[in-house]
Amino acid sequence: MNTAMNLFEKHQSLLNDAIEALSKRAYYSPYPESPKAYAEDGDAKAKAWISATMNNNYEGLDQTGSSEFIGEEISPFLQMGIGVRYPYFSEQILIEKAEAAQKTWGNTNPETRAGLLIEALDQVKARFFDIAYATMHTTGQAYMMSFQASGPHANDRALEAVAMGYKELKSVPESAEWVKNLGKFDLKMNKTWKAVPKGISLVIGCSTFPVWNTVPGLFASLITGNVTIVKPHPKAILAIAIVVEELQKVLAANGFSKAVVQLAPDTQNAPITKKLAEHKAVKMVDFTGGSEFGNYIEQLPKTTFTEKAGVNSIILDSVNDLKSVLGNIAFSASLYSGQMCTAPQNIFISKDGVKTSEGTVTFDDVVAGLSAAITGLVDNPKAGPGTLGAIQADLTYNRTNEALNLGGKVILASKSIVNEEFKDARIATPVVIELDKSQGNIYNKECFGPIVFVIKTDSVENSISLAKTLAEDKGALTCGAYTTSEETKLAIAEAMNTVFVPVSFNFTGAGFINSHAAFSDFHLSGGNPAGNASFANSEFVSKRFVWVGNRYM
Amino acid sequence: MNTAMNLFEKHQSLLNDAIEALSKRAYYSPYPESPKAYAEDGDAKAKAWISATMNNNYEGLDQTGSSEFIGEEISPFLQMGIGVRYPYFSEQILIEKAEAAQKTWGNTNPETRAGLLIEALDQVKARFFDIAYATMHTTGQAYMMSFQASGPHANDRALEAVAMGYKELKSVPESAEWVKNLGKFDLKMNKTWKAVPKGISLVIGCSTFPVWNTVPGLFASLITGNVTIVKPHPKAILAIAIVVEELQKVLAANGFSKAVVQLAPDTQNAPITKKLAEHKAVKMVDFTGGSEFGNYIEQLPKTTFTEKAGVNSIILDSVNDLKSVLGNIAFSASLYSGQMCTAPQNIFISKDGVKTSEGTVTFDDVVAGLSAAITGLVDNPKAGPGTLGAIQADLTYNRTNEALNLGGKVILASKSIVNEEFKDARIATPVVIELDKSQGNIYNKECFGPIVFVIKTDSVENSISLAKTLAEDKGALTCGAYTTSEETKLAIAEAMNTVFVPVSFNFTGAGFINSHAAFSDFHLSGGNPAGNASFANSEFVSKRFVWVGNRYM
Repeated sequence: MNTAMNLFEKHQSLLNDAIEALSKRAYYSPYPESPKAYAEDGDAKAKAWISATMNNNYEGLDQTGSSEFIGEEISPFLQMGIGVRYPYFSEQILIEKAEAAQKTWGNTNPETRAGLLIEALDQVKARFFDIAYATMHTTGQAYMMSFQASGPHANDRALEAVAMGYKELKSVPESAEWVKNLGKFDLKMNKTWKAVPKGISLVIGCSTFPVWNTVPGLFASLITGNVTIVKPHPKAILAIAIVVEELQKVLAANGFSKAVVQLAPDTQNAPITKKLAEHKAVKMVDFTGGSEFGNYIEQLPKTTFTEKAGVNSIILDSVNDLKSVLGNIAFSASLYSGQMCTAPQNIFISKDGVKTSEGTVTFDDVVAGLSAAITGLVDNPKAGPGTLGAIQADLTYNRTNEALNLGGKVILASKSIVNEEFKDARIATPVVIELDKSQGNIYNKECFGPIVFVIKTDSVENSISLAKTLAEDKGALTCGAYTTSEETKLAIAEAMNTVFVPVSFNFTGAGFINSHAAFSDFHLSGGNPAGNASFANSEFVSKRFVWVGNRYM
Repeated sequence: MNTAMNLFEKHQSLLNDAIEALSKRAYYSPYPESPKAYAEDGDAKAKAWISATMNNNYEGLDQTGSSEFIGEEISPFLQMGIGVRYPYFSEQILIEKAEAAQKTWGNTNPETRAGLLIEALDQVKARFFDIAYATMHTTGQAYMMSFQASGPHANDRALEAVAMGYKELKSVPESAEWVKNLGKFDLKMNKTWKAVPKGISLVIGCSTFPVWNTVPGLFASLITGNVTIVKPHPKAILAIAIVVEELQKVLAANGFSKAVVQLAPDTQNAPITKKLAEHKAVKMVDFTGGSEFGNYIEQLPKTTFTEKAGVNSIILDSVNDLKSVLGNIAFSASLYSGQMCTAPQNIFISKDGVKTSEGTVTFDDVVAGLSAAITGLVDNPKAGPGTLGAIQADLTYNRTNEALNLGGKVILASKSIVNEEFKDARIATPVVIELDKSQGNIYNKECFGPIVFVIKTDSVENSISLAKTLAEDKGALTCGAYTTSEETKLAIAEAMNTVFVPVSFNFTGAGFINSHAAFSDFHLSGGNPAGNASFANSEFVSKRFVWVGNRYM
């Protein structure tokens, strides 16, 4: 595998930087997030590509063993089917092909695997614009988020997994001479160690972040020697199909089987997820999605990595500049219409209002201010459509419209706005509902989508206690907190960290609690009901292989 | 905690050496295994200590909240109760005390914890002779094994867990400044990370290796900030009680609660293990013991680390010097009467016999040779008693005596031998039974104790296949292989490593497959049914805490 080893040399310096970044955890992103950093004609070419791709069979993938083409994706911007059809494989075919590819991939050394995977990320980079349009027309993310989240940010997370995997694989030497002095003589052994991969890996994608949430598990499994089957959400296949295609191309070009990475599309009426997940040959499952299915995955007798639902809280106590704070929260709640797993849902505010540098603002005035901030954002034609994007799922759209009837005091109703580029886009602005702390039956669960609850509590202590209990019971990925008191800051950190939830304090300007940066922020802690995985701690890779040592005399 | 930080400085160089040893995996043992390396009067003092301790209440442990004294240990060497009684606590009291101690211990920094724990290991070292007698008179291990396995080798494993824990805890910085350039301005955040302990840890000991199998989980939980309840086997408390006592003394001397480590003795008629394991406040369980109970532990909705039963095989193909090989196997099978989790049970030999440098030896002659080697060892009054020790459990003793009726061809019956020092010792020499490969119903399960099956196979390929399938189905901790063929060596390594079993090749002289050296050999791979833990890979510590990061603007 001369070529493949050359790929390691080609990418070794990047890999070293990435490994160093993991232990420094300062800002690091080798894939620039601005579209301007890439080919000038990239966007135009991608527009042509998506036009040509729609209403056609997707021909870029390995089709060996495929019996038909299927696809049922719908663009939330066009509100019509995009007509892309992918090669379909039965679970038997997928498993057979994976099994045939496992031995060679498992015996390929970490250097070769790292070189191939980083080379594939380079090829994916050349398709960031294609991936952006593919993401838009399946998830409803606006253009900029589609580009960044599925492109550079996803590549960052994939590289993070490769770097963490490589680091762990090199933490034990390949061999050692072991010499024990027994007085009159030495007892000598030669020892070798190998990271034996657990076997076939299944990565189950979600409909809102089909690339960002898939590549960590995919690249973590691949770097540790496990061939992987990617089972995308039937409504969000196109973007991850590009990633699988580029991986397959790099594998094939270097003499490896394309079956090291397979795409396993299915339809909502004929799902194959459980058949794959329960198959004896599948040893690991990565999953992003709802809690019910996630809990089913976790109880399988396998190694599992889950990201499930959580309820994210903001604790609003005291601020310097209330307007900038409410503007920040309004953006966090509006971004991709609250369809991020890190979007805030519950805003806990004391009935005594919010202390500011210009005096205390009453609870009602704070709520009115948040409502005004959201309206100002979404009604701004330059900001609204690009922030909100479109609603991915019928369920989310219906839930948002029916939130009026949940029982709280409706402060701001959801509505549509005009998207000049996509007149048919399915849009829903955030609904804001005021609740009393006693209405936990309404706010103590995830209401996925642009639904914001403002909860009137007795005090900041009460706010903290409610946010903590909720996170402990239902899970949370993030928590925002605004306080100018050092004591309160400590109390919030202590309370939320104890239930394994990270806190972002006093975020304003361009800092948003929704964003988790690769190489710095752990996405998910793995310690609360929002999921058992963490992108990317050492466990995220080490649980995918087993150290086995041999001794020779 | 000035004193405690001084302990870190005192032990920092040892800790650094231990961490370095983890990545080199050459020979490293800071606690010499020979009794001669310790105080000259140590043995005499320990003899006096055990005499004074027997038939008395054990007063060294924290007794706060204790309601009575209990104890029912029996010496396999004396075949009478040793009469030591320990302070008993209800599970409610144990949990309450643990909960009260958790917050402070969880917030204690890794340096302080490491200093305290290594200091405790120093204090334990001063009691190695006491621990040796305590181990002898509960487990039936002979003196030398009692000293080494429960003393220096256990301390090595404890230090290994501390070193791995400390290394993992330092793999993420306490803080970082994160600066992202956004063109016109920088987005700046201060970030902090904390390894939040999961909470109360329960470590369930076994009756044969009450210290060696307990301290890895105990010290791994403690270094990562989790207070720990040690639930020893009711028949093997005394040795680990000493370790807990020394930990409590060091904790108290440095201003920490003794409840950071509690001993939870119980009796076979009134067990508290399940009550503790199922308690909501208990977040982690380490377990060593039978597969049935281990499987129950693994299905608890908690973080678990198990060592269960396995069946260890030897594949005997070709050798240079058959006599030295058979002598080695005889010793491995006789050591502590096969009551080691790493003892060989099944010896697979081709019907065509074993190739040696002096020609092929027939199957029957090999079996006769093994039988002679065992007889030569156990009948030698200078070697037999010290190798065999005594039988710990009634069940093991009965199983060994009834092995004659299992259905195979009895090559060598079990018998007792004279132990001059302990006339009443319960002794059983290995029984050797010849089986055909078709008699899997007999050999494809663990028969704990001095029971050896020699299995006649079709060929070495057949031997490998049987050993592999057995390990995959029932688990194995080790595998011995004898072959002079490089090709066969590769085939055995490939087959056994694929089912996550390490192989020891061509062990003769002082190298025994039973021994797993800390800082070099992983004990258990964690990848087959013999258990889900591995002493001590990174997971063995990282699964005990959760990384949580806060961000500040």
